[in-house]
Amino acid sequence: MRLSELSRRSGVATATVKFYLREGLLPPGRRITATQAEYDERHLRRLRLVRALIQVGGVSVASAREVLAALDDDSLDQNERLGTAVCALPHGKPADADDPAMETARRRAEQLLELLDWGYDPATGATIPAYGMLVTAIAALERLGYPCTVADLEPYARTLGRLAVNDLDLVERYGGTADEQVEAAVALTVLYEPVLLALRRLAEAEESRRRFGRK
Amino acid sequence: MRLSELSRRSGVATATVKFYLREGLLPPGRRITATQAEYDERHLRRLRLVRALIQVGGVSVASAREVLAALDDDSLDQNERLGTAVCALPHGKPADADDPAMETARRRAEQLLELLDWGYDPATGATIPAYGMLVTAIAALERLGYPCTVADLEPYARTLGRLAVNDLDLVERYGGTADEQVEAAVALTVLYEPVLLALRRLAEAEESRRRFGRK
Repeated sequence: MRLSELSRRSGVATATVKFYLREGLLPPGRRITATQAEYDERHLRRLRLVRALIQVGGVSVASAREVLAALDDDSLDQNERLGTAVCALPHGKPADADDPAMETARRRAEQLLELLDWGYDPATGATIPAYGMLVTAIAALERLGYPCTVADLEPYARTLGRLAVNDLDLVERYGGTADEQVEAAVALTVLYEPVLLALRRLAEAEESRRRFGRK
Repeated sequence: MRLSELSRRSGVATATVKFYLREGLLPPGRRITATQAEYDERHLRRLRLVRALIQVGGVSVASAREVLAALDDDSLDQNERLGTAVCALPHGKPADADDPAMETARRRAEQLLELLDWGYDPATGATIPAYGMLVTAIAALERLGYPCTVADLEPYARTLGRLAVNDLDLVERYGGTADEQVEAAVALTVLYEPVLLALRRLAEAEESRRRFGRK
């Protein structure tokens, strides 16, 4: 397909598609004349992923490039590519200065992951961005006077463990090659975040109505 | 306590505390001399909430003021205050232009909430920001070629429904007056979001290792 069709089918403006091509977020098409190139389904899929990362995930062009580099790294297996790509996603503000709350939070996070037996390796695990994000979040709760213990965290972690099984079932249900599934897994990681946060607020409103609402 | 102690106990710099006082995010202390005022536990609690909203939730000063106004509105009951405060939190970018994906997403969200029997009233519900956030998120999935049906969404919604029960149990466990509980509920809504997103990414990494990892 031509650039105009790629734009139409993806819903991304041609100027934006050209920008992504220039930035290397989209591989060049197959040149057919001096001014025209031909694109295929892989371009369309990649364009959709870039769109998900940048527009929904708020990922910068530089981070998107890192995510895509991980997806295209043939030296990694499917699990490593997914892991590396998710690690390249932004993870909120970096951890605050070291204080007693950070120390407590680090201990809690480590105890939690040990309890869950999530194959967490303290030697390398501390470098996983999602782990740093968890520690920072627990420290913030601690500092603000809402201590969150391992027992408080456990039901959330177990629940999200079950949802992760569901997430990857969904990815396998979409079908496609191993490459396509890794791409879909990264896209769904990002795209389901606002779905989860929105459903949580709606669920809380419902539960608040049940508990505290006028009878 | 004096401003210096309020700053020490909250971990918020005195210049920042003074800024919050000027912006009306913190009620004035009880004046004891021309230059000094006395603050109490309510100030400390309020200061912690403001900190949670602004630093962790990324809430603007103007939105924080709206959230606090809802919490202080005596004409509302506990459920209404919580609902109004959560509605005043930011909910991501507003919905995109109307297109077929938005239409589909609106229908799906409505069917989902009907199925869950979450007391959703289509007449007023469409104005709840979390509902708009859900519709926008479903539309983004749809547009990017990852259709998410009511059946796909249902397990996520049911799971978050159970977590919401847990959220409010946690709030009741912290104890305190009805006012303090509504404050805690708003703080935990914001503070647990990064906890959930971080745990989800860790859970996905674990599940990916199980399915696709080198044996």
